[in-house]
Amino acid sequence: MNTTTSTTNPIAQTISPAELLEHWQGHRRLTRKVIEAFPEEEFFTYTLGGMRPFVEMVMELLAIAEPGIREIATGKREVLVEHFDHGNKKAYLLKLWDKATENINELWSEIPLSRFSETTNAFGQYEGTNISHIMYFIDNESHHRGQAYVYLRSLGIEPPLFYDR
Amino acid sequence: MNTTTSTTNPIAQTISPAELLEHWQGHRRLTRKVIEAFPEEEFFTYTLGGMRPFVEMVMELLAIAEPGIREIATGKREVLVEHFDHGNKKAYLLKLWDKATENINELWSEIPLSRFSETTNAFGQYEGTNISHIMYFIDNESHHRGQAYVYLRSLGIEPPLFYDR
Repeated sequence: MNTTTSTTNPIAQTISPAELLEHWQGHRRLTRKVIEAFPEEEFFTYTLGGMRPFVEMVMELLAIAEPGIREIATGKREVLVEHFDHGNKKAYLLKLWDKATENINELWSEIPLSRFSETTNAFGQYEGTNISHIMYFIDNESHHRGQAYVYLRSLGIEPPLFYDR
Repeated sequence: MNTTTSTTNPIAQTISPAELLEHWQGHRRLTRKVIEAFPEEEFFTYTLGGMRPFVEMVMELLAIAEPGIREIATGKREVLVEHFDHGNKKAYLLKLWDKATENINELWSEIPLSRFSETTNAFGQYEGTNISHIMYFIDNESHHRGQAYVYLRSLGIEPPLFYDR
């Protein structure tokens, strides 16, 4: 949360920018645990019902999170890159995940309170308020992570506790 | 959003109470479509990986949503009732869902802005700020609905579009 905002706006919020960031990063910590819970091979290959393996969903989440927040913070158009070379290594994806965590924290601090209700044509494709984009980033992550829980369960693996962030 | 709040608080919000309600109700409309997408029998019986059939998750969502908001709106302790007689009829659950939709809207209008940051020991078990409870209600719904998407896909049924609320 940037200092200007917090000093000039002591009034009640449904959720403050700092709380919303922590909420999201809590989700991201849980998703990280879910990635870790997958066996190395199944992370890249296992599917149910003709859906994508979890790696494909994780690449989508990475494509959205940091670039999406950068676009909101800077106002500059970002490109959605949902496929990239990962060498079939979970460790590589986890490293990207952690780097995104840091960068999101940094970019978030540059977003003034007034910016949440402004609109962005996210990735040049999705018109909406910045808060609606952020809520969607979180929703989309919960949605796909919920799917990964079924993958894990059907592999006989106990997923991380949902409420443990 | 109650009138007092909106008149006395024209200042920027990350997300206004009215927007947060609409966000949640959008999720609830999507979950309703997912219930509708299930074949009558499989809604009550189909599982993967030893998980619960979707009806059990829906009863959990019903147990949480309206009573959870009532507790926040009134400050009076509610009881978590996750199991009840549904007669194996989707129509019965859908009727409860719609009734909850109306009641949530009504209860929401009684929650002043200052109430979101106050704490409640939800259902006498979960201590936290009211906003953290509300975010959790939404998260939990997204999580289980994501699981239902896998159930539907593995039944060969195309689920509703995730972003169509």
